[in-house]
Amino acid sequence: MSPDEKLAALGLTLPPVPKPLANYVPYKRAGELLYLSGQGPRRADGSMVTGKVGADVSTKEAYAHAKLVGLGLLAAMKDAVGDLGKIEVIKVLGMVNGTPEFAEQPAVINGCSDLFVEVLGDKGRHARSAVGMGSLPGNITVEIEVICRILQ
Amino acid sequence: MSPDEKLAALGLTLPPVPKPLANYVPYKRAGELLYLSGQGPRRADGSMVTGKVGADVSTKEAYAHAKLVGLGLLAAMKDAVGDLGKIEVIKVLGMVNGTPEFAEQPAVINGCSDLFVEVLGDKGRHARSAVGMGSLPGNITVEIEVICRILQ
Amino acid sequence: MSPDEKLAALGLTLPPVPKPLANYVPYKRAGELLYLSGQGPRRADGSMVTGKVGADVSTKEAYAHAKLVGLGLLAAMKDAVGDLGKIEVIKVLGMVNGTPEFAEQPAVINGCSDLFVEVLGDKGRHARSAVGMGSLPGNITVEIEVICRILQ
Repeated sequence: MSPDEKLAALGLTLPPVPKPLANYVPYKRAGELLYLSGQGPRRADGSMVTGKVGADVSTKEAYAHAKLVGLGLLAAMKDAVGDLGKIEVIKVLGMVNGTPEFAEQPAVINGCSDLFVEVLGDKGRHARSAVGMGSLPGNITVEIEVICRILQ
Repeated sequence: MSPDEKLAALGLTLPPVPKPLANYVPYKRAGELLYLSGQGPRRADGSMVTGKVGADVSTKEAYAHAKLVGLGLLAAMKDAVGDLGKIEVIKVLGMVNGTPEFAEQPAVINGCSDLFVEVLGDKGRHARSAVGMGSLPGNITVEIEVICRILQ
Repeated sequence: MSPDEKLAALGLTLPPVPKPLANYVPYKRAGELLYLSGQGPRRADGSMVTGKVGADVSTKEAYAHAKLVGLGLLAAMKDAVGDLGKIEVIKVLGMVNGTPEFAEQPAVINGCSDLFVEVLGDKGRHARSAVGMGSLPGNITVEIEVICRILQ
């Protein structure tokens, strides 16, 4: 199955790529590398999922938010190169808006990592850091940025 | 106008590039990529701007600090390649020393992003994450690191 | 002396590279760049060093933890390319699990930077950010991720 077919089999639809409101862009290419701007968990209606993980939000809920972020990142990848079959994920920085005591960042960011491997297969496997932030824009629960390689 | 002429028209002067006091360097090149070390807001007298954004420091004040960081980053870029006309900004990681509730990181980091586009034009547009840290060195308000591409 | 000889002279032994338990990998290559996943301070018995720097843990103790992380990162580099003589360190992101007031992140991350230069010489010097996180996985004291260049 192609990545598009896998998305369909999972019942997932890529969202539109949001237009940034400032002097930055959703992604930028440098040679074969594609740098994606950090994204948050955007619902289908355009609203963002907010809250502190470990207080208002459970690890399991935040896993679903990270998956939602991953879907937005896949949409940006497809927008950038036209075909997800040309994408290899290289590096993920997963940032969780947790309490100072929150300790399950990897279990949250797995929501994104698992989606990448489900959709892209082995090319979705990546180096990763999953860490806890002091705060995030608009109090979103999770923000993830990614570096990909564009296959010829 | 060249980037140097734009800086002059904006009334801005590039500061000296501070010498790191440890086993790291202000920037490092890998092929056509140039990685800049994270910088903080350094005043012309060499002192750093400190405080927690959202408590001691407003978003508007922190925007000015991010612009100050951007000026130091432009200085490092010029030091690395000699001519800002050869620089394309690829990726910005903007880190704000905010309270746990602070939510306006993008409005802060715009201070740096706007400067890059004012000085470098479209080559200043970049992929970006703007996030909140738990703490920063010496309690500086903002730290920003950048990846550039060196144009031939 | 080769990097392996320097490690021996320092009385240091590279630990095994831990197998990630999820859909990510300890390192991933893209062209001449090698991206290492974030690592924490893993003791020889496999347990992790935990605590909040600035509260439970001193800067001097955390310097030793960052050195321990650096040793694990050198192990991943060697696992990836077979010979540490082929490695140039390009970029370090040093993340400290500190209190909101903690301000000595650079002094902590020097533990890793110093080790890289001791073992790899000038090829160990790197661009760097050393910053404070809100929280880290399993409450580890330090997490560090690295980008290297593979020399031909």
